[in-house]
Amino acid sequence: MSEPFPESWLTEGIRRIRPADPCWREQAQRRIHTLTMPPWALGRLLDLAVDLAGMTRSLSPAVARRAVVVMAGDHGMVAEGVSAFPQAVTVEMVHNFVRGGAAINVLARQADARVLVVDVGVAGDLRSLASSEMVRLRRIAPGTANMATGPAMSREQAIRAIETGWETGEELAETTDLYATGDMGIGNTTPSSAIVATLCEVDPDQVTGRGTGVDETIRMHKAQIIRRAIALNRPDPADPLDVLAKVGGLEIGAIAGVVLAAAAQRKPVLIDGFISTTGALLAQRLCPASADYMIAAHRSVEPGHTVALEQLGKTPLLDLDMRLGEGTGAVLAMHLVEAAVGILTDMATFDEAGVSGGGT
Amino acid sequence: MSEPFPESWLTEGIRRIRPADPCWREQAQRRIHTLTMPPWALGRLLDLAVDLAGMTRSLSPAVARRAVVVMAGDHGMVAEGVSAFPQAVTVEMVHNFVRGGAAINVLARQADARVLVVDVGVAGDLRSLASSEMVRLRRIAPGTANMATGPAMSREQAIRAIETGWETGEELAETTDLYATGDMGIGNTTPSSAIVATLCEVDPDQVTGRGTGVDETIRMHKAQIIRRAIALNRPDPADPLDVLAKVGGLEIGAIAGVVLAAAAQRKPVLIDGFISTTGALLAQRLCPASADYMIAAHRSVEPGHTVALEQLGKTPLLDLDMRLGEGTGAVLAMHLVEAAVGILTDMATFDEAGVSGGGT
Repeated sequence: MSEPFPESWLTEGIRRIRPADPCWREQAQRRIHTLTMPPWALGRLLDLAVDLAGMTRSLSPAVARRAVVVMAGDHGMVAEGVSAFPQAVTVEMVHNFVRGGAAINVLARQADARVLVVDVGVAGDLRSLASSEMVRLRRIAPGTANMATGPAMSREQAIRAIETGWETGEELAETTDLYATGDMGIGNTTPSSAIVATLCEVDPDQVTGRGTGVDETIRMHKAQIIRRAIALNRPDPADPLDVLAKVGGLEIGAIAGVVLAAAAQRKPVLIDGFISTTGALLAQRLCPASADYMIAAHRSVEPGHTVALEQLGKTPLLDLDMRLGEGTGAVLAMHLVEAAVGILTDMATFDEAGVSGGGT
Repeated sequence: MSEPFPESWLTEGIRRIRPADPCWREQAQRRIHTLTMPPWALGRLLDLAVDLAGMTRSLSPAVARRAVVVMAGDHGMVAEGVSAFPQAVTVEMVHNFVRGGAAINVLARQADARVLVVDVGVAGDLRSLASSEMVRLRRIAPGTANMATGPAMSREQAIRAIETGWETGEELAETTDLYATGDMGIGNTTPSSAIVATLCEVDPDQVTGRGTGVDETIRMHKAQIIRRAIALNRPDPADPLDVLAKVGGLEIGAIAGVVLAAAAQRKPVLIDGFISTTGALLAQRLCPASADYMIAAHRSVEPGHTVALEQLGKTPLLDLDMRLGEGTGAVLAMHLVEAAVGILTDMATFDEAGVSGGGT
């Protein structure tokens, strides 16, 4: 059905990705045990500190320069009536990002993170934003095709989506220590559910939620559309590119690319909600070692998100009933990354502080 | 058994505490529905924004000036062998706070929060810190008495502990928009478990955990000491001052006082882990309206914490398996408070941004 993965220079890039370093993890653990607090008393903040040391090969992991990449794309299957918002909102929201009025702008400012919006497949016209520092026009197609009637895109387009994400990650490399992923695309919970259902081999109903706020009738209709798309296109669960091409989205592929680029640079990448985690799951299937660089930022209310997180073996840092996307959960978790690093680097040891150790 | 609560000027202070304002809550809700995102898509961050509006009577709640008050005290019942650390660590850690080497210092710096440490009942000598900006020497007793052999303190001392907390909250009023509570006191999970067991009328075993890291044998011993202390002292669950006096701690009473002072000022107060939430529960029993001003910052691994949170009707913002105290969880949640305010004040509306509204 498909060639042995993958074609193009993506193979080369993926070959460069190495797992996190267990020696640096162990050094971080040892240091933490000398710090003035009871054993592992900051819990998962300390686990995160150890993860960061293993990723960056450092006891003072760099996380000061931050960027959130918001991948934007449209979806042909919105013709099936699966979203509460009209497709035009994708373009309108990109303009809102550029003017700084969206939730991601507010939260990124607070997190001191740069926002970069990449058009990888928006259906409307964004040429008026060509000169914006914040925008990259890298459109592969004006939205995907309707997966309910045929493949969402070609295999070549799927590869180009991932490569575009990777290139964006590389463009930011010189100025970025900590990455975050985000998405904008009306209807994009539907391809995310289709990808997760296929890769995790579960019934679409289990991984299909209410997206931006459809009712139960439309949710069931969404699950039915996904079932039909999978039956028609027969994506191969063992071939992530085939899955992305047949039932995916351009921005989802591009998110996978950003994640792989961060992993190749041995830098942490905060994964936002359901759409971003679907991209991260594709990245992990393409290159299992890339998962070592992913930090699950938050748990979305979308049921498919929890399934995807379990497949990645990740427990998210935040659980606040959010379901917005844009990278909002990812930037909201940045301060926890900063806190983990601060604990590792700035606390006094028992010896330095003259504090008596515990008896156990 | 006890006079109708309470004696002294505490009565007057409590009388000033009013519930949060439902009109401001409703205004905040209405504004949020006009912002460029699907309905309530930031979940509990938006609930928090509404809470803050109701507390502060404002659509741009002030949260910029932040302080964490760390109440320090010792506990006579450490003679029963309930803690993994020696009592001297309370004093040693206060010195560590002043030198800036503890976890609370690191996390408070990141949160841009002032740290104030108040000795309300430390057993060692802290006079060398009298000139420190960061310290207040307000010792009521050099630690509590051993509650396994008699009451931990007198009713008068319990009232003075609460008043000391209140006065600290008032001292900070001019320079503080957002309060946080913290604690330092070797052995203080034991009186916290005793207070929660009494106020919530549950068996001590259900609310007794491993504190800073004791094993299961010592944990069971702790629960047994608490049972003995309750049987001996017979604290009255309907009289919070009686409970605090007989099986409590000076720093726990002082935390209750800080919480009440914040509520009287109509300002938000972030409640840290188990010890702080025990103080908050005392405050709520003294004045139910004060609970409107409490924000549960995180869920500690201590089993009694979850019981106390349920009594307060609070769901914590963070759940990171922490169990350190000092106010670390409370300052870690400050950025979520800031984020909630930012969403309320800085996002564009659908009209302003020219974004199409949802169909549902």
